[in-house]
Amino acid sequence: MKWSKAYIFTLKDSPSDAEIPSHKLLVRAGMIRKIGQGVHTYGPLMLRAIRKFENIVREELEKSGCIELLMPIVQPKELWEETDRWNKMGKGLLKFKNRLNQDWCLGATHEEVITDFVRKDIKSYRDLPIQLFQIATKYRDEIRPRFGLMRGREFIMKDAYSFDMDKEQALLAYQKMFDSYNRIFQRLGADFRVVNADSGNIGGDQSQEFHILAESGEDHLLVSEDGSFAANVEVCPASDEDENIKLSDEEAPLEVFDTPGLKTIADLAKALKKSEKQLVKTMFYSASKDPQKDLKPVGILLRGSDEVNPIKLKNLLDLNDEPLMLNEKEVRSVTGANPGSCGPIGLNIPIYMDKGVANLKNYTVGANKDDKHYKNVNHPRDFKTERVVDIRLAKEGDLVPNGKGKLKSYRGIEVGHIFYLGTVYSKAMNASFLDKNGKSQSLEMGCYGIGISRTVQAVIEQNHDKDGMIWPVAIAPYVVHICLLDPKDEKVSALANQLYDELNKLGIDCLLDDRDERPGVKFKDADLLGMPLRVILGGRGVANGEVELVERKTGEKRSVALNSMTSVISDWWRQQGI
Amino acid sequence: MKWSKAYIFTLKDSPSDAEIPSHKLLVRAGMIRKIGQGVHTYGPLMLRAIRKFENIVREELEKSGCIELLMPIVQPKELWEETDRWNKMGKGLLKFKNRLNQDWCLGATHEEVITDFVRKDIKSYRDLPIQLFQIATKYRDEIRPRFGLMRGREFIMKDAYSFDMDKEQALLAYQKMFDSYNRIFQRLGADFRVVNADSGNIGGDQSQEFHILAESGEDHLLVSEDGSFAANVEVCPASDEDENIKLSDEEAPLEVFDTPGLKTIADLAKALKKSEKQLVKTMFYSASKDPQKDLKPVGILLRGSDEVNPIKLKNLLDLNDEPLMLNEKEVRSVTGANPGSCGPIGLNIPIYMDKGVANLKNYTVGANKDDKHYKNVNHPRDFKTERVVDIRLAKEGDLVPNGKGKLKSYRGIEVGHIFYLGTVYSKAMNASFLDKNGKSQSLEMGCYGIGISRTVQAVIEQNHDKDGMIWPVAIAPYVVHICLLDPKDEKVSALANQLYDELNKLGIDCLLDDRDERPGVKFKDADLLGMPLRVILGGRGVANGEVELVERKTGEKRSVALNSMTSVISDWWRQQGI
Repeated sequence: MKWSKAYIFTLKDSPSDAEIPSHKLLVRAGMIRKIGQGVHTYGPLMLRAIRKFENIVREELEKSGCIELLMPIVQPKELWEETDRWNKMGKGLLKFKNRLNQDWCLGATHEEVITDFVRKDIKSYRDLPIQLFQIATKYRDEIRPRFGLMRGREFIMKDAYSFDMDKEQALLAYQKMFDSYNRIFQRLGADFRVVNADSGNIGGDQSQEFHILAESGEDHLLVSEDGSFAANVEVCPASDEDENIKLSDEEAPLEVFDTPGLKTIADLAKALKKSEKQLVKTMFYSASKDPQKDLKPVGILLRGSDEVNPIKLKNLLDLNDEPLMLNEKEVRSVTGANPGSCGPIGLNIPIYMDKGVANLKNYTVGANKDDKHYKNVNHPRDFKTERVVDIRLAKEGDLVPNGKGKLKSYRGIEVGHIFYLGTVYSKAMNASFLDKNGKSQSLEMGCYGIGISRTVQAVIEQNHDKDGMIWPVAIAPYVVHICLLDPKDEKVSALANQLYDELNKLGIDCLLDDRDERPGVKFKDADLLGMPLRVILGGRGVANGEVELVERKTGEKRSVALNSMTSVISDWWRQQGI
Repeated sequence: MKWSKAYIFTLKDSPSDAEIPSHKLLVRAGMIRKIGQGVHTYGPLMLRAIRKFENIVREELEKSGCIELLMPIVQPKELWEETDRWNKMGKGLLKFKNRLNQDWCLGATHEEVITDFVRKDIKSYRDLPIQLFQIATKYRDEIRPRFGLMRGREFIMKDAYSFDMDKEQALLAYQKMFDSYNRIFQRLGADFRVVNADSGNIGGDQSQEFHILAESGEDHLLVSEDGSFAANVEVCPASDEDENIKLSDEEAPLEVFDTPGLKTIADLAKALKKSEKQLVKTMFYSASKDPQKDLKPVGILLRGSDEVNPIKLKNLLDLNDEPLMLNEKEVRSVTGANPGSCGPIGLNIPIYMDKGVANLKNYTVGANKDDKHYKNVNHPRDFKTERVVDIRLAKEGDLVPNGKGKLKSYRGIEVGHIFYLGTVYSKAMNASFLDKNGKSQSLEMGCYGIGISRTVQAVIEQNHDKDGMIWPVAIAPYVVHICLLDPKDEKVSALANQLYDELNKLGIDCLLDDRDERPGVKFKDADLLGMPLRVILGGRGVANGEVELVERKTGEKRSVALNSMTSVISDWWRQQGI
């Protein structure tokens, strides 16, 4: 593409609502543009990157026998009612009525639609195994869309589904998909990790996430140093050395004491000269699916140094969305005190105790009276707990659950997720087949997603510098960026056009900056757009019989004789292994 | 693709709601499946046909400098309010609120979004001309979806938009698009016509439709025999020889007479021994944008033999949707009589007179009393008309508006539509640029659609027989269909697989039916699926050193020596010019 015929408009400044580098850079390059919160137009350059990534995904899935189809984004309530997800999906599922007052939703995922599709065709185990996929636009009604495509409402996703005759075959399909995903992200050229994950509203009992590592990643990953364990913090079992120490202290008598003005755990630790680990805090949440109607308060006991893991809590309470923490007024209505002076003693609500608290003795909790605490608190002597649970967030330095050393922390952007579903959907939707004995069985299922648009941005979040984006060759909108410095010099211009034609003929996507602009402007734009290889063709170089090549990633420069430029570039291209 | 690895399930019976052949066949072939009214999943074979057509469209548009991007389906109210189409689009625009109670709609068309996109980039006439396009899913809330993809709610469309500095440049862009469309539909191999058309809710003052001809087509096209004129009946000016005859009769005195039991024009014509052309009927419509609230009745006078053209009437009354005809109760409230005895005399509502009535004298109309009519009615003596207008449907045999002969009638399926828009959108949305004199000007625009999914079905509506579909080579899911009749015969199977590999290597898409099924089943499925060239490889043929080729379209059969089959097929392929 020649710049003069292209639609490329770059900006000097980032939009005010862009917080992370990739978002700023994609907007500055005109590659994405917001039309509403969480909804973006993909500009021509972005669409090229997206399509290239889609093709990698398509090729790798087809290699393993996965077949492409295309399902609708607008879906009828009736299908979602069969699995009860019309109710269970939470507010992320956008529902609406059409002109005939019928209920529909925008597809946030397609388990119901695909299960409906195959149940009409599959009759026998001979029709299995089957893997189907689509690459399509989806919509999730994110409450706070942010970071450009990272957490958008409308997005492009690849979703695949497997159907098998038994669990063994289903786990083979899962493994095949796992392998395909690894090939896909390797081809992409991204630094990624695979971690154990929560199954969320999708259901099922085994799932792993693929994360592209990046400082700004919304996900917190915990990985053992030997690589034998990796989990999203959301599901990472928490375990540390302290919690396993059983204290042999005698239980001292319960005692109230004054704690005027001590509102936080930090205040209390300072005043009592204890570490936060030795204190116990009580957090209050609503266990209700509709807190407006019915609060259903529950208390959570944790060590002062720990944090509640909202996903563990959501799963514990069997909720559809993450539970709401009670506000000050609600806490007072439950306990009679402000949140800084609350504790479990005397409350008539369910209390869940984190396992980190289980072995503590003679500890301190709020007394449910403003500015008062109890000390020498002991359970079960002083209060009753519903259950001891693993409810806290694991963190770096915690013990690896498999016993192999300590956890290391990473930030990641979730770009892929694979689930073994079992028969949750097929049973609910009556998707069955006749097995070898002529007996009707429910289909074993798996589902597998890749956030296409999110991945493309994540790649930039991982690969950029202060000057702009650094595209990996595999999905760069154009692979070679020719800066024609003297477009009015006929000889230079002819050479640039010749190179452009030759590279395109070799299948090497080429962008030719043929604008009548100063070199500085062209270099700045080339840095911003970040195509892998820059070719600088100017009057002076041409006079010396030379052209300059610059690799965007390394900044490495080399001069190449004019008459060998095409072959040098095509050699470089072959080395990229694309 | 080998059938054993593919997802192909054919049905013997058509669904009960399928009325036209293409709909029945696509469902029977498993190529589309309804998940709700007007919303379909595209099966793997269908997706291949769609992608092939998309690529033809993409190639032809890119040839003429059109650049691809991708816009969202979910769009904020604010953009649509800028053009007032939030209100004007009618009920086809599906609106909804998200979880934050903000107003959004599903994109039925993208003029607002694209105009918003370019207005942020375009500063100078030097940035022009620009043509952008996308291929994307759209949604229109059709009240009565039918015929499969023909009138679906969710569909795939290519929409393109041009931006120019003046009308001259804009009409050049329009012409370029007209040429691209002709190339696209020629490559598709379809029999199509281009006709003048209504601009509908899109606006603008020049538009043409591309129709694939088919008996079941919903559109009625009127074409002059010499090809110099073609129009959709919706906009075709009506003119016939009778209406131009000026009668010199004296005006006779108005007279009421009894017409007991004569309710229809046919009844009246019979009783009065006149032709329907000599009678005048009065039709009543609501000119209101919200007939529930405010009826705003109007009367339309036509010759008994004519029909009201709802699009002409909609445009006359400046409505967003086609006007509602008054029901019997409403007619009685306006006229005091049943619809069979109504007329214009004495009514206090606007009366529009079709030009076919203008020259009539001493005619008959209802008297606004049950079972009474007036005769010897004359205007303007007996009643006042708002205006004489062209409000009737033109029909075969009418005069061609350009005076060149008579109109011939066709049925068509609208698959493309091009509009010259002028500055309707750019003015409303402040999309301007600085011209050569540094003066701010509104962008001149055009917009151009092709219904991708509809076109693919329309091709089958035009190309099928009693046994199944007949795919044109250009978009056939697979070009060659190998029927392997004796899959257990190792020699035959090896030959089939060899041919399959060789053809795929040559880039000839191949489907190999390797199922363990009877020949009859395979032939029936091959007829239904309708791939252009069938290759029959069976034990008997192979023993004779022969293979049979059958062209789906012509049924032409020929035997070919086994050792030349690949070269014969590749020669055939080259002749297709794809």
